[in-house]
Amino acid sequence: MLVFKDGKIVHEVQIRVTYKDTDKMGYSYYGNYPTYFEIARTEFLRELGLSYKKLEDDGFLLPIANMSIKYLKPAKYDDLLTVRTSYKKLHSVKVEFEYEIFNQNGEILNQASTLLVFVDVNSRKPIRAPEYYMNAMSRFFEQNKN
Amino acid sequence: MLVFKDGKIVHEVQIRVTYKDTDKMGYSYYGNYPTYFEIARTEFLRELGLSYKKLEDDGFLLPIANMSIKYLKPAKYDDLLTVRTSYKKLHSVKVEFEYEIFNQNGEILNQASTLLVFVDVNSRKPIRAPEYYMNAMSRFFEQNKN
Amino acid sequence: MLVFKDGKIVHEVQIRVTYKDTDKMGYSYYGNYPTYFEIARTEFLRELGLSYKKLEDDGFLLPIANMSIKYLKPAKYDDLLTVRTSYKKLHSVKVEFEYEIFNQNGEILNQASTLLVFVDVNSRKPIRAPEYYMNAMSRFFEQNKN
Amino acid sequence: MLVFKDGKIVHEVQIRVTYKDTDKMGYSYYGNYPTYFEIARTEFLRELGLSYKKLEDDGFLLPIANMSIKYLKPAKYDDLLTVRTSYKKLHSVKVEFEYEIFNQNGEILNQASTLLVFVDVNSRKPIRAPEYYMNAMSRFFEQNKN
Repeated sequence: MLVFKDGKIVHEVQIRVTYKDTDKMGYSYYGNYPTYFEIARTEFLRELGLSYKKLEDDGFLLPIANMSIKYLKPAKYDDLLTVRTSYKKLHSVKVEFEYEIFNQNGEILNQASTLLVFVDVNSRKPIRAPEYYMNAMSRFFEQNKN
Repeated sequence: MLVFKDGKIVHEVQIRVTYKDTDKMGYSYYGNYPTYFEIARTEFLRELGLSYKKLEDDGFLLPIANMSIKYLKPAKYDDLLTVRTSYKKLHSVKVEFEYEIFNQNGEILNQASTLLVFVDVNSRKPIRAPEYYMNAMSRFFEQNKN
Repeated sequence: MLVFKDGKIVHEVQIRVTYKDTDKMGYSYYGNYPTYFEIARTEFLRELGLSYKKLEDDGFLLPIANMSIKYLKPAKYDDLLTVRTSYKKLHSVKVEFEYEIFNQNGEILNQASTLLVFVDVNSRKPIRAPEYYMNAMSRFFEQNKN
Repeated sequence: MLVFKDGKIVHEVQIRVTYKDTDKMGYSYYGNYPTYFEIARTEFLRELGLSYKKLEDDGFLLPIANMSIKYLKPAKYDDLLTVRTSYKKLHSVKVEFEYEIFNQNGEILNQASTLLVFVDVNSRKPIRAPEYYMNAMSRFFEQNKN
């Protein structure tokens, strides 16, 4: 589900908290959230017609440069989380996502941001994103401008 | 190994990057670092004579409130990482740690910080740390003051 | 999706292989399959109207006693796996599941079985499954007998 | 620590159960054991002078073909596990390990076996192990024959 809101591309995906995710507090372990964000941004891209797998097959890696997370409330076993991913500004080298996670009662559990950088698979140096990535993103911004 | 340096308690621990940690880039997945930090701060506390397990058994949980990570260089399979954990200032309710991760060549790979908060196991509300935690920490600061 | 086939209750669920799941071979790490099976049997029970969370809240734990896995072909990044779970025979104390995993091309990747045992949350000793579990299972077998 | 016992090469390594490993039962999640076995066999090989990383760099992968696990008792948070790995018979294509896991009280928690197969990194077909692997293993058996 992709929408345009407040100048951002916004996407939502649902993720179920597994038993594996839980820790002895009965919460989803704090180290699981990066995986939730990975799933969220991959599905975000897929909805835009962009496959992260294809990007890699085409020689573009997207390692993480920065991540920042606020843990507001715990996610619990079997919770059905909604991860809302926002993309605000098109860049040719870096990709910034913001995330909010809600539980099935609409409570906000988590706020986070990640910065990824396009890197060449061979040189492992920063490179510009491929044309089709830039086009898919800018097309969505154009269509929703007014 | 605990030392006192620049007004901070500093601890180092070594962690081996497992095959499980790797992803298809050949790097340690970005979501593994919270686990590295957990191991590092647990061993930090153990060296001070504090068992995180005992804290929990005594009714004190330490969930994460905030985490911030800079990924500078990738950790690779079978790398022997050194996680350097620093603790600067004694608080009675929250615990702030800073982390730096180095590989076996001395290259810095990662810089991070976490904020944890003491929480009562029953009410799940913030509480003051137990006396023995405050004492162990302040004793170390006192001993190393001059 | 629950069906009755060859005397077994058979359920299928789809799981996407994440980046986190991959290892440096480009395969889903062999240690991820227990999590795939956990998701599969949880959704199996949910389709039958049984919540594993509710079972635990009611005091019934289901730890694993045995697991056996054959790795036939690797699962790869972004593969959309189908996990087919089969339940053959109703027991009052133990739960046996069999699993087959297929990729999006219909190739079989994995065959496995697990044995779980009902355990009391307080004594941590084996106990008989609750009535509503026995009823949900036997009702499905009865309905599909002929 | 490598010893020769009852015709087998036997190795022990210690692994600490992390908070990340725990689940809401307070046990180490059943899906963590494959990682414990990976660590155990990697350190087994390292003690024999064999680096699994070097094997891969030389073009030899070792994917898992089979795994079988008996869960006897749960491992708990902060337990210091001893994983005892045994290697009985030298093969040129496959590698069989057996594992036993004990807690710090000497209680046996887990018994398992894995079968790995040497595979060529390019063709991804089975191949014979490199000479230096065969030599390291047979040398140890020879030295300890009588």
